Amino acid sequence: MTVMFEKVAILGLGLIGSSLCHAIKAKGLARLIAGHAKSAETRRVALEIGLVHSVYEAPADAVVDADLVILCVPVGVCGALAAAIGPKLKPGAILTDVGSVKAAIMRDCGPHVPKGVHFIPGHPIAGTEQSGPRSGFATLFEERWCILTPPENAEPAAVQKLTAFWEAMGSMVELMTAEHHDLVLAITSHLPHLIAYNTVATAADLETVTDSEVIKYSASGFRDFTRIAASDPTMWRDVFLNNKEAVLEMLGRFTEELAVLQRAVRWGDGETLFNLFTRAREVRRGIIAAGQDTAAPDFGRGRPKV
Amino acid sequence: MTVMFEKVAILGLGLIGSSLCHAIKAKGLARLIAGHAKSAETRRVALEIGLVHSVYEAPADAVVDADLVILCVPVGVCGALAAAIGPKLKPGAILTDVGSVKAAIMRDCGPHVPKGVHFIPGHPIAGTEQSGPRSGFATLFEERWCILTPPENAEPAAVQKLTAFWEAMGSMVELMTAEHHDLVLAITSHLPHLIAYNTVATAADLETVTDSEVIKYSASGFRDFTRIAASDPTMWRDVFLNNKEAVLEMLGRFTEELAVLQRAVRWGDGETLFNLFTRAREVRRGIIAAGQDTAAPDFGRGRPKV
Repeated sequence: MTVMFEKVAILGLGLIGSSLCHAIKAKGLARLIAGHAKSAETRRVALEIGLVHSVYEAPADAVVDADLVILCVPVGVCGALAAAIGPKLKPGAILTDVGSVKAAIMRDCGPHVPKGVHFIPGHPIAGTEQSGPRSGFATLFEERWCILTPPENAEPAAVQKLTAFWEAMGSMVELMTAEHHDLVLAITSHLPHLIAYNTVATAADLETVTDSEVIKYSASGFRDFTRIAASDPTMWRDVFLNNKEAVLEMLGRFTEELAVLQRAVRWGDGETLFNLFTRAREVRRGIIAAGQDTAAPDFGRGRPKV
Repeated sequence: MTVMFEKVAILGLGLIGSSLCHAIKAKGLARLIAGHAKSAETRRVALEIGLVHSVYEAPADAVVDADLVILCVPVGVCGALAAAIGPKLKPGAILTDVGSVKAAIMRDCGPHVPKGVHFIPGHPIAGTEQSGPRSGFATLFEERWCILTPPENAEPAAVQKLTAFWEAMGSMVELMTAEHHDLVLAITSHLPHLIAYNTVATAADLETVTDSEVIKYSASGFRDFTRIAASDPTMWRDVFLNNKEAVLEMLGRFTEELAVLQRAVRWGDGETLFNLFTRAREVRRGIIAAGQDTAAPDFGRGRPKV
């Protein structure tokens, strides 16, 4: 691999930020990586495990001379971060982010981006339920999609360069508008997370079934929901606060559909249930055929030893 | 391991039935395994891959002289199966099943069990989303719970023998009433499956987001739901038709909770969202501490090669 950027600044060193550091280093995409983290402990860990060449408490210090700046913080603080670094951004630099909503990022960050800096929001569709500077790994973005939502007036060369960067991470890149991104992610990500959180909360509040029973017998389906519901609470709070309309729209459709299923259960309408369950299987097959999940039973979860 | 039964009959050779065959053979728990499957193709495969020593089209033929008979068919056909084999069951034999609901099994099978046969319904909390005679494996039940729901007048020695059988499969056994089982499983299994099916159906019906987009970007949460929703439609239809009251009760609680979350999204109530998300994390930690799931990120799904 050839060096694509002299200096990259990664602001926020959680799962995505630390994975970016690992991948950039592994692939030799930058000569220097500067990091920023709010927490002193995260900054200490980042140096200890060699995520970055230098790390700063003040985000503006990290972006000096950087050719590529990536915001890897919860959506709700991107605007303030952009305001803090705006004056120090190098002319010609690319500024991007990895947030799970895009219209709000454009709205909050856009005004702070100086002329001559290329602001191209992005969203790698990759992650695990873990958080923090030790949770990252270099292959997180391999064979995953990354969506970029360049503003209408974005410079094609800058979009191309950021596209090449994500392709070098092993990702497949797609461009769309921020509004369409937010709608797509509302159904593929935000709704499933809200539903998973809600299922776990429902279980935790039962009087007739103990918490210990819920945990013991979770292998029957519930535990898959708890993995999703173990994701970072701050990040997810910000997602729901910043993609309100699309999430409410998907929730409305979800509850409509659920009413139909509930009625089928109540009236013993086996045909409606069977037909819907059969359709759902097809979607799974499409996901496996597209290489977006493993076909191994139970996700290939480690089996206990015999 | 010592032989526990001279002859075991496994009626139904899908995921659970074939896994039982593999495990019984691997552990040497029976001298003979007789099988029954409705489909000629399944019977052919069962002999070809050595699941059973003999296989029968008529279930009554399989149970002759069997000391342990296990019904491994969808809940909705257990009653008819019990009626068919009742007259041929050997006095002193244990009759059990593996169905995901228990009160309906007691109601449907009970009347067909002759005096002198020990009827003890059971439910191993283990499975994958796959089906058919080739989907089974010997370690499926290892370190998983198995719930038995013996009727009040069950003979303790028979309960003990069936308990020892499941323990030999590597499972941990718990006894409870059929009614309590159905309530516990309604929240840990039936509700999550219904919700997963419903989420997949909601996504499939969108006009604004294409099916191909749903599939491409499924790694962001949705794909976990599709795994659950890929389970056998007949089996799941029967579960919902036969555990109606408990499922409706859990659904009612779920939609109540969801209304609270929906309101928090609409009004931008970040604190409610954050607190609920934080609580959900704790439940996940309990499940990992109890050994009921892997702590590996993303379930330890196979990562693409670098």
